[in-house]
Amino acid sequence: MTEIPKTMRAMVLTGHGGLDKYEWHEDWPVPEPDPDQVLIRVAACGLNNTDVNTRTGWYAREVREATSGEGYGEIESGTWGGSGISFPRIQGADVCGRVVAVGANVDPALIGKRVITDNWLRDWSDPLNREKARYFGSEADGGFAEYTVIDHRNVGVVDCDLSDAELATFSCSYTTAEGMLSRAGVGRGERVLITGASGGVGSALIQLAGRRGAITIALASPAKHAQVAELKPAHILDRAPADLAAALHGATGHDRVDVVADIVGGPYFATLLDQLVRGGRYVTSGAIAGPIVELDLRTLYLNDLQMHGSTVVEPHIFRDLVSYIERGEIRPVLAATYPLEKLREAQTAFIEKKHTGNIVVVP
Amino acid sequence: MTEIPKTMRAMVLTGHGGLDKYEWHEDWPVPEPDPDQVLIRVAACGLNNTDVNTRTGWYAREVREATSGEGYGEIESGTWGGSGISFPRIQGADVCGRVVAVGANVDPALIGKRVITDNWLRDWSDPLNREKARYFGSEADGGFAEYTVIDHRNVGVVDCDLSDAELATFSCSYTTAEGMLSRAGVGRGERVLITGASGGVGSALIQLAGRRGAITIALASPAKHAQVAELKPAHILDRAPADLAAALHGATGHDRVDVVADIVGGPYFATLLDQLVRGGRYVTSGAIAGPIVELDLRTLYLNDLQMHGSTVVEPHIFRDLVSYIERGEIRPVLAATYPLEKLREAQTAFIEKKHTGNIVVVP
Repeated sequence: MTEIPKTMRAMVLTGHGGLDKYEWHEDWPVPEPDPDQVLIRVAACGLNNTDVNTRTGWYAREVREATSGEGYGEIESGTWGGSGISFPRIQGADVCGRVVAVGANVDPALIGKRVITDNWLRDWSDPLNREKARYFGSEADGGFAEYTVIDHRNVGVVDCDLSDAELATFSCSYTTAEGMLSRAGVGRGERVLITGASGGVGSALIQLAGRRGAITIALASPAKHAQVAELKPAHILDRAPADLAAALHGATGHDRVDVVADIVGGPYFATLLDQLVRGGRYVTSGAIAGPIVELDLRTLYLNDLQMHGSTVVEPHIFRDLVSYIERGEIRPVLAATYPLEKLREAQTAFIEKKHTGNIVVVP
Repeated sequence: MTEIPKTMRAMVLTGHGGLDKYEWHEDWPVPEPDPDQVLIRVAACGLNNTDVNTRTGWYAREVREATSGEGYGEIESGTWGGSGISFPRIQGADVCGRVVAVGANVDPALIGKRVITDNWLRDWSDPLNREKARYFGSEADGGFAEYTVIDHRNVGVVDCDLSDAELATFSCSYTTAEGMLSRAGVGRGERVLITGASGGVGSALIQLAGRRGAITIALASPAKHAQVAELKPAHILDRAPADLAAALHGATGHDRVDVVADIVGGPYFATLLDQLVRGGRYVTSGAIAGPIVELDLRTLYLNDLQMHGSTVVEPHIFRDLVSYIERGEIRPVLAATYPLEKLREAQTAFIEKKHTGNIVVVP
């Protein structure tokens, strides 16, 4: 076992704002694990919308219209966000690495194991209590550094041939997507419409809904259709067809779908809702095109629709995900790898959304 | 058994429009029951929003802002409404009466029994199929007449001391309300906020949520608080408190509620949604203050909310309702009784919403 240094390299967020709020440090203190925690030497860490949203203060009520996250001024944080964020903060929720030390209450057999992390930090005496859930890399330091600590119940040992960077693409996006599909109760043979299909959660939705035997219909820009096709959706359509009913009918033989899994929101929201069958389900875990939408309550109630928001998922979702990875039921979509010190460039590329799948940084 | 005449008195709706679309007839043909139907001599029939909405074409997409239902011009019907409405049509969904004849497939023991009607006309070979459900008094003739026919599986024999007019207050409002509470899964000890608490569905929600052991918080105009108090909600607040969080805290000791059961919609919608706990449920079966609302998708997804629309309810809901009535677990709230030929006046009073409970007409 290699000796653990006292300091490390880390990308530190110093406050809400632009990319200039990230500071690079080469002598940041290495954290020490609490009795229930493990210390992980980070091998790779995936980027997520949460990094951008936390930095820009998206979770504050004042942000009325979404952009991809630049340049907000006055921000009151924590409106939706539990205990709120304090600075300095090391972000990064999607860690792959090796356990190098454990706290007093943790089985030492974990040392040396390659693990990925579940981003929902729970009160493990009350693990289903969503009010108490905190987010790794937002409400506690995460993986944009050489080392990080996390509760041992938040790591999953993964035994497979994938690379560290490939493994760092999964956790946040795929637990988010699986949580959405679980909440909407997606089953075999159902038609599931997926927005933002080329993104991290979108590509996860395609694979995980397909794994359930659903008929997946992916919405993505034509420039990305070739890449999205590799995820094997049943159908691919333009990102926002002007006549969605006709586009769906042409692809599937039906005007309507059983489920909409949406991470885009914005002006297309009403069109999506209109294409649900009676009793259909809409599920959301994001609104990259804008959170404020117009809802016609008649569409909701006269069609007996359900709408589900999904943020804090149940603990079994992460354990299920690890088993899907080990059985090869889903495959990683690694868009690009950057060195950790180039996080600003990596996040700029992430925000531009020209990639398919997930972007990862390596310390 | 009295002989059944060939003609009857009936209030006939001749098209979409204002109250002048109702025509009074004294020689309208008495309907004959199909093999699976019963013929009911109507003793009383309750009024409902559906009567108004069908008359004015509320179920057409062009109606962007709700009023209480007067004066729409160009209307394309049937946008949400299944097979649509044809004219002439006898409305009235909430019948209490006696079975006076039965079709060939129906047990003659039903003759002479006092019954109430379930307004959802189902395909009884596929009774859970909501796409096939039609509405009594909208997509088939109803009870604003001396006689009406309905499938024998749509009547419930009620054995109790209530008057005919009192029994005609229940079915539509209470199956709607029980369907909402069932869909939201309301349970003992939960805080349930009820809008429009003095109306038919609102007063039903108070009684039925209370029956489940929930802590009911009723929103109603101060002028109606005394009447609403007779329904025994745990708390009564102003119909739209400017600071709802403070009003809730003052009443219950908590800022937030587990469930919002809303039949009002309109500008107060966002305020209601903001007061749900994480994982809370919003359920709607109407939007009398306006169907087009602004939704912040962050409130939905970051708080893990559920939103349920409820229109077509499952068949057991009506059977459950009959048992609650027979056991005296709920009581009627009869606001006023009018003769059938005064339906226009009755509906004018209904639209003015100065009453508490339900208005009934008697042929």
